[in-house]
Amino acid sequence: MLRRDFIKKGAIVAGAGAIAFPNILTANQKAKYNWKIALTWPQNMPIFVDSANNFAKNVELMSGGAMSIRVDAAERHKAPLNVFDLVRGGQYEMAHTASYYWKGKEPSTVFFTSVPFGMTAQEQNGWFYFGGGVELMDEVYSKHGLYSFNGGNTTNQMGGWFKKEIKSIADLKGLKMRIPGFAGEVLARVGASPVNIAPGELYTALERGTIDALEWVGPALDVKMGFHKVAPYYYTGWHEPASEMQFLINRKKFDTLPKELQEIMKSAMLSSSFMMLSQSQHENAMMWDSMKKEYPNIQIKTFPKEVITALKNATQEAYKEESAKNALFKKVYESQKAYMTKTREWTKISDLAYLNSLES
Amino acid sequence: MLRRDFIKKGAIVAGAGAIAFPNILTANQKAKYNWKIALTWPQNMPIFVDSANNFAKNVELMSGGAMSIRVDAAERHKAPLNVFDLVRGGQYEMAHTASYYWKGKEPSTVFFTSVPFGMTAQEQNGWFYFGGGVELMDEVYSKHGLYSFNGGNTTNQMGGWFKKEIKSIADLKGLKMRIPGFAGEVLARVGASPVNIAPGELYTALERGTIDALEWVGPALDVKMGFHKVAPYYYTGWHEPASEMQFLINRKKFDTLPKELQEIMKSAMLSSSFMMLSQSQHENAMMWDSMKKEYPNIQIKTFPKEVITALKNATQEAYKEESAKNALFKKVYESQKAYMTKTREWTKISDLAYLNSLES
Repeated sequence: MLRRDFIKKGAIVAGAGAIAFPNILTANQKAKYNWKIALTWPQNMPIFVDSANNFAKNVELMSGGAMSIRVDAAERHKAPLNVFDLVRGGQYEMAHTASYYWKGKEPSTVFFTSVPFGMTAQEQNGWFYFGGGVELMDEVYSKHGLYSFNGGNTTNQMGGWFKKEIKSIADLKGLKMRIPGFAGEVLARVGASPVNIAPGELYTALERGTIDALEWVGPALDVKMGFHKVAPYYYTGWHEPASEMQFLINRKKFDTLPKELQEIMKSAMLSSSFMMLSQSQHENAMMWDSMKKEYPNIQIKTFPKEVITALKNATQEAYKEESAKNALFKKVYESQKAYMTKTREWTKISDLAYLNSLES
Repeated sequence: MLRRDFIKKGAIVAGAGAIAFPNILTANQKAKYNWKIALTWPQNMPIFVDSANNFAKNVELMSGGAMSIRVDAAERHKAPLNVFDLVRGGQYEMAHTASYYWKGKEPSTVFFTSVPFGMTAQEQNGWFYFGGGVELMDEVYSKHGLYSFNGGNTTNQMGGWFKKEIKSIADLKGLKMRIPGFAGEVLARVGASPVNIAPGELYTALERGTIDALEWVGPALDVKMGFHKVAPYYYTGWHEPASEMQFLINRKKFDTLPKELQEIMKSAMLSSSFMMLSQSQHENAMMWDSMKKEYPNIQIKTFPKEVITALKNATQEAYKEESAKNALFKKVYESQKAYMTKTREWTKISDLAYLNSLES
């Protein structure tokens, strides 16, 4: 019942609700608070768009229609990688996006989405909610007049599609790969040529050899892009072990909302984050299963130990260099690193020990 | 900011809220809906009690004080393992408990908490919200006039404290162990003697040799019980890979609530479930870390392959026998089994491949 209500219910039902909130609930009355949310995602990007839609519907239902939120996909506002400024400037009250897109403005934002060799989703959520993560995120975003709240996780992202097998670190030299964010900087350090390309041009770029490899998300979103037709090697991940999306909100606008609506929005964002994580686990699993049946020629690979070691070392160097330049980056990095050391030990003795005991 | 608000904020703040919900928000006005929730947990059981408290506070905040929920720990109602009947009979509107306590009334309830060799928390959440789990849970509980909503996960539970090392299946013969639920039946099949003992008597029973072993939860709750002083072997888990708690609600009472309050309650329960999972990851990790430093003599063990195999086989037998007797048990078991097969493949190629690549 819960899932059906949460995911599918769009209409605002008044009826019995009128008992509780008599002044705001007559069915034909206009919402008192009309907001707009700008998505980084195009309309046809499930899971991500679902998370924002779930949030908006849930706020409308919980507020009995007092608050209405119009969801604008990227096609409408035409600035997917600029929603930060749309919200800061007040053209939109809020956005649904990924924090690491703002690393050019504020390098420390990468830690709130995902970093190479970072935490799993469950580890990351421990850090966010109980290990100081949300407080640090608030410190980072308050500088820019914004609130940031978590908005859903992709689970572990696959390491990408490669035209040729990667057998050693030498195979990465000169490799042209679409890979954004901090992971791109890491790859450059081991000799690759990272580039960013708009989603609509990815397949053609890979097919024509403009690039030799690319990473996108995971099976749920990758397979329908057709990458397997031109790049048969599909690698397990290292660069985004758990990518958390974020809601951004204009701070002044949020602060003027009634307290209950603020609480309703926070609970709806938290629920959406949890649902996106669960949906990602589900849809990746289902697609993985059918992919292996429908496309048995896809070669599933894990990078050799030599490559992982080189990437790990390059990641450590990149962290150190950026930390020396930016105190806030250093502060967030050190918080996450110290937390990860502890939480990983628990992961090893709990989920990992359990899963490995079944495999032995 | 989010965590602080969610976890610590108790007081209901009116103020600005009066703008949105003018009729329900004057600070001195009494709540229109006064409910009581009965916990299976004693007052001093953190994480579990926190989840119920978070829920109640969040509902009060989101409803602007229109709904108030009194949280009664086990000491008050004195029926921790009978809250099912307290809610069904209407003495309490709702409860926070674990579904598998009702296996005597309804065997299929075990699958909504945790079963031996079952799913991890992330896998289970995929099943609950997108794989048909909540619909099955609703089918099971609607027979009894109840709603059941998830209320938080412990993460992987440890396999327990043993006075002697378990080197082979022979060491389990005649072993007296406190272990409840389906796992107890499994242990009996391999020759052990499972018993259930009240929490307050556990330490003494283990110290005096009334029992040879026990499982409780995980480091966050186990270590302060002092079990390590009398049973030095601490085993990794197999019997509860992810134990999800549940809210139970009297169906008629929930159905008469205004629609918005129903939505507010559902979002608050979902948020509490997510927070308890994150808090369990966090507190287990922190306690694991300090336990290893403070009590270096605790022997961390994983059951030998022979033991795991015997327990797996006994679990399969137990599932088959119960399925032959109970159609609803069979239905839920088969749904979970089919789902687990698929989602585990994704876990192996995502989180497990990632974590193991770092260990190699």
